[in-house]
Amino acid sequence: MSNWSSVDIEMMSRAIMLAEQGRYTTRPNPCVGCVIVKQGQIIGEGYHQRAGQGHAEVNALKMVQEQGLSAQGATAYVTLEPCSHYGRTPPCALGLINAKVARVVVAVTDANPEVSGRGIAMLKEAGVEVDVGLLTEQAYGLNLGFMKRMKTGLPWVTVKVAASLDGKTALSNGVSKWITGIAARADVQKYRASHCALITGVETVLVDDPSLNVRFESLEELTTRHTPYEIFQPLRVVLDSRARLTANQQLFTIESPILLVSGCDYPPEIKAAFPEHVSFLVIECDSSGRIPLLPLLTYLGNTANSVLVEAGATLAGAFVAQNLADDIVLYQAPKILGSHGRNMLQLPDYTSMEQTPTLQLIDERSIGNDKRYILRYNQSY
Amino acid sequence: MSNWSSVDIEMMSRAIMLAEQGRYTTRPNPCVGCVIVKQGQIIGEGYHQRAGQGHAEVNALKMVQEQGLSAQGATAYVTLEPCSHYGRTPPCALGLINAKVARVVVAVTDANPEVSGRGIAMLKEAGVEVDVGLLTEQAYGLNLGFMKRMKTGLPWVTVKVAASLDGKTALSNGVSKWITGIAARADVQKYRASHCALITGVETVLVDDPSLNVRFESLEELTTRHTPYEIFQPLRVVLDSRARLTANQQLFTIESPILLVSGCDYPPEIKAAFPEHVSFLVIECDSSGRIPLLPLLTYLGNTANSVLVEAGATLAGAFVAQNLADDIVLYQAPKILGSHGRNMLQLPDYTSMEQTPTLQLIDERSIGNDKRYILRYNQSY
Repeated sequence: MSNWSSVDIEMMSRAIMLAEQGRYTTRPNPCVGCVIVKQGQIIGEGYHQRAGQGHAEVNALKMVQEQGLSAQGATAYVTLEPCSHYGRTPPCALGLINAKVARVVVAVTDANPEVSGRGIAMLKEAGVEVDVGLLTEQAYGLNLGFMKRMKTGLPWVTVKVAASLDGKTALSNGVSKWITGIAARADVQKYRASHCALITGVETVLVDDPSLNVRFESLEELTTRHTPYEIFQPLRVVLDSRARLTANQQLFTIESPILLVSGCDYPPEIKAAFPEHVSFLVIECDSSGRIPLLPLLTYLGNTANSVLVEAGATLAGAFVAQNLADDIVLYQAPKILGSHGRNMLQLPDYTSMEQTPTLQLIDERSIGNDKRYILRYNQSY
Repeated sequence: MSNWSSVDIEMMSRAIMLAEQGRYTTRPNPCVGCVIVKQGQIIGEGYHQRAGQGHAEVNALKMVQEQGLSAQGATAYVTLEPCSHYGRTPPCALGLINAKVARVVVAVTDANPEVSGRGIAMLKEAGVEVDVGLLTEQAYGLNLGFMKRMKTGLPWVTVKVAASLDGKTALSNGVSKWITGIAARADVQKYRASHCALITGVETVLVDDPSLNVRFESLEELTTRHTPYEIFQPLRVVLDSRARLTANQQLFTIESPILLVSGCDYPPEIKAAFPEHVSFLVIECDSSGRIPLLPLLTYLGNTANSVLVEAGATLAGAFVAQNLADDIVLYQAPKILGSHGRNMLQLPDYTSMEQTPTLQLIDERSIGNDKRYILRYNQSY
């Protein structure tokens, strides 16, 4: 269908806006919004807030019911194809059928190839009119990580870099506080809060001793909408190929999950000293003594829609060089650190421009005195 | 004076706009605009177009006369203090006095400390009301190079860099065509056209074989306002410390002035082969075998208001490291060339953030797909 009415467009836009409100809380489920419209009026709306709780359609139908209204003959706008399976909740397609909705407009079909189209088929079989493809791109963009994971088993990978205008992330001696300003650093917190996992390297942990947690208080966008208990702390993943870490770093004092990935087991007495929120994964190192990244991402893809790489030039560059990165988020400060500074991404020694990464500039904006660029690899899933 | 009327502000803004039209043609003279207003109406206006031709005030008074009007009792708005000396033209202050102008509003006093204030004094002695200081910053900005040269004897130094987001100007093998897009490269032409001289290094000439001229046709801003004959080609200055150049480069085929600066004389037979538009300057090299930059700039300051450095990381970085740069103009393309690429500015190995250059971001804008940043050193002249 291509001749959408202005009401269709308005209502799906609203459903997308509602879906966005789940950005920090639904994972590993997707963000979904639903608006139910009868005779041009919204009679119910809702979004998915948290895994295990009501889906968007259920919440919207509940609102209709609570108002003593009926959805019979109404149109439901949903950002993602209604589910067709019995999980923790009955299938949403069935809920819409039972409510006697006359028409369902779907922005995006389900990403999971095994179930894609089934919800739509269930609706159609019940005589509900179904139109698919309104504001697809925007709705898809709500759940890039979920979509990629459903289709490939791998999480969406965002490599985060903070650098000067001449591309340096630190002076030669490692001094990097602070290149970017307060506003940019607060923006990073939003990235952390919206990602399922963070990946960093053992060197970063040993040298910078970071906490790598979401500092809830620093984020107005979070505090006005959420309580600290609603916000997930991302899984903190540290690549420690030679199992060098001990429990003495700042990272471990914060009680949220940590995964230590090493090429060999930690010595038993060291391992025993790590707190309970630390778990372990051994992946055999590659010939250069590094943790291979594809097996790592495959493992993380079991539960994580998205990972944020906050690491030095070697590890961050490896994701880019191995074509495993989806986005580079670059915070750039109007400073010059000079030729001795540390490079942002360790990449192969290219001999022609054609070999350099093909990136699309998706977004650029000012954040305080700094710039934020989102560069995307043209990969389709 | 601080209570400027809205007419004052409007008319001085117009004078500044007129002055700007001389940007590519007045040098080494400053850009100056003049608007003559009587009973709220503009009766004459003009700007300085070219050294040796009429000053702004002369052109504006001429327009008054040509219309059969009189400037008696009028207000003259001038962006720069009227001159008080007999040069190629009689003093403009005298011209305004003779025309019986009642009031003169001046944006900026003369930069030359030896004559600053004299034009104003001459007007006041003749009973003309003089108000100074309206839109000073904007008017000063018209002639940053002229002002600096008048005050210090040195030209304004702009270091131009074109780089990727990770601060690389080329791949390790020197490949750099093209990092930035067509629009950014055309913008560089405007920079060249508005600078008195370009400085580059012998390595750039030997490796890239550039012409380093203004390609008039590529510039709509130039072609709509000027003929090619009106536009200056900047003096092309090549630093060739060991006198290695021969007449075989592209640079020499274009008949506009070139200055070869070397630490020793060229061999007579080599020197004889250079075309007539090439001149020579010998400056003794410093202990590291390089042409010292301050003596070079002092020499160029005899005639040049502004120089544009278009060079590799070593020479460009030297201007920055020696605190001789005023502006860095950075064209930045949304590309990643990787850690092996060439750095933009060779600078000392800083050990603290405080040691890095203190730059102020003066301007940033999109040019095609690229960004252009103007970063300014906080130097006052």
